[in-house]
Amino acid sequence: MDARSCTTRTRVRFGETDAAGIVFYPTFFVWFDVGTHALLRAAMGALHDADGRPLWPLPIVESGAQFLAPLFSDDEIAIRSTVAQIGSRSLRIEHTVTRGDVDVARGFEARVLVRRDGAGISAQPLPDDLRAALSAPIATDAWA
Amino acid sequence: MDARSCTTRTRVRFGETDAAGIVFYPTFFVWFDVGTHALLRAAMGALHDADGRPLWPLPIVESGAQFLAPLFSDDEIAIRSTVAQIGSRSLRIEHTVTRGDVDVARGFEARVLVRRDGAGISAQPLPDDLRAALSAPIATDAWA
Amino acid sequence: MDARSCTTRTRVRFGETDAAGIVFYPTFFVWFDVGTHALLRAAMGALHDADGRPLWPLPIVESGAQFLAPLFSDDEIAIRSTVAQIGSRSLRIEHTVTRGDVDVARGFEARVLVRRDGAGISAQPLPDDLRAALSAPIATDAWA
Amino acid sequence: MDARSCTTRTRVRFGETDAAGIVFYPTFFVWFDVGTHALLRAAMGALHDADGRPLWPLPIVESGAQFLAPLFSDDEIAIRSTVAQIGSRSLRIEHTVTRGDVDVARGFEARVLVRRDGAGISAQPLPDDLRAALSAPIATDAWA
Repeated sequence: MDARSCTTRTRVRFGETDAAGIVFYPTFFVWFDVGTHALLRAAMGALHDADGRPLWPLPIVESGAQFLAPLFSDDEIAIRSTVAQIGSRSLRIEHTVTRGDVDVARGFEARVLVRRDGAGISAQPLPDDLRAALSAPIATDAWA
Repeated sequence: MDARSCTTRTRVRFGETDAAGIVFYPTFFVWFDVGTHALLRAAMGALHDADGRPLWPLPIVESGAQFLAPLFSDDEIAIRSTVAQIGSRSLRIEHTVTRGDVDVARGFEARVLVRRDGAGISAQPLPDDLRAALSAPIATDAWA
Repeated sequence: MDARSCTTRTRVRFGETDAAGIVFYPTFFVWFDVGTHALLRAAMGALHDADGRPLWPLPIVESGAQFLAPLFSDDEIAIRSTVAQIGSRSLRIEHTVTRGDVDVARGFEARVLVRRDGAGISAQPLPDDLRAALSAPIATDAWA
Repeated sequence: MDARSCTTRTRVRFGETDAAGIVFYPTFFVWFDVGTHALLRAAMGALHDADGRPLWPLPIVESGAQFLAPLFSDDEIAIRSTVAQIGSRSLRIEHTVTRGDVDVARGFEARVLVRRDGAGISAQPLPDDLRAALSAPIATDAWA
């Protein structure tokens, strides 16, 4: 699949490390989420309404990662996020975190578009404009 | 003032430390927030509606802390949270974090009760039941 | 395999939610890490030296999770962590997060025991006492 | 005092908000820490040794902030960090967080330079090069 991607550059924050001296691993998933939002912003523009609520509520249903090398405070990193699959109501985004030429982690997120539905939430079809924007083979850059 | 207090016991999480080997300082404010929620829960019962939104929206207007001793991963701590002042629309809560007999941090939060008001939010008077529950000289315990 | 497990009880913190009104998903991995530390503590006692450095440095090499239901602020949860596999230098721990009778997430961590080795780190064999303690079919409870 | 300052630009992460729809307040202190590290990096270069340990260990002794306006996910912000006072062993850094022309928070950090000292840590005098670099009336920019 040749779809949208986004590369987000940032720097490891001191508070993202732990007493072992390296990045605390859940932080990688925080960065995946940052990458997904940067990709969505490039695709769709504004991401939230005036109350701060997501315009494209895409809760996670599955996620995973392999951790290949340790990362240290202040390291400059890039998060490359790519739309790997578009289903009728769902989305798979793959992420690679690099420091220079080195891949330090690879992972994915599976997300489903939902809407409020009385007391609960239910999955809904991806609208055409979102589908088209995510399918476009466009690569953008962002700063986190 | 002799008002409500709550002591919340928890343990320092590994992810709350940083590469200096001790607790990353913004974590203390996370614990203050945990303490305030435990105190409110003891005073008022349920804290959120079915959508997960706060029933008592009390955004912060000022906060501060003194840090007296380092804390390490896995340390057992207690957060003692006390209602120090009740204004017409605001609240001051003081927090002490202890490990055993030692005070490791002292701080405070000033919060204001708000409500949604068209496009923005505005301060609102503390309702009588909230005021009465916070004023009661009751000490409770909680686990975080 | 019938090995060690640990059930850690805690409550969703307000700061663990996001503007969608539910728990921000990387938090589940924070809880997995909390569960692993509670299990290790039950198995081995103290987890850190006087400088706060891990006695059993077990960095992550792979992790993943399925998210089955949304979680809200203040929800009471249990993290059940089970030793699923013990390799010569590695460990697989499986985690289930429940609210009441409902499984809200299932996941795993693959970790490798390491030691400082000059400029870098290298994998090392699990010592016999750690292996024995993790293999023992013992179930414990903890509070986070 | 006319000393060093640094302005760090970043964007509010979705995970930094809470179920009230706005930024969870301890995040402001995370940003203060980010600002201090950016200022130190501009002043001194590398911040950590090969093990990821801080070269300039400056634990916090006091911090505080006033919160003037709510911040939402995806808001673009700047953190302006200024050296406000240099003592013999300590440092006061003031921070202002802005969105466009609006100040959304103001705060400070008081930090002390320490070194490992057998089992504990002790305050040490700021070395001349650090003192000179922090005193220089230089303004830099950074991306977080």
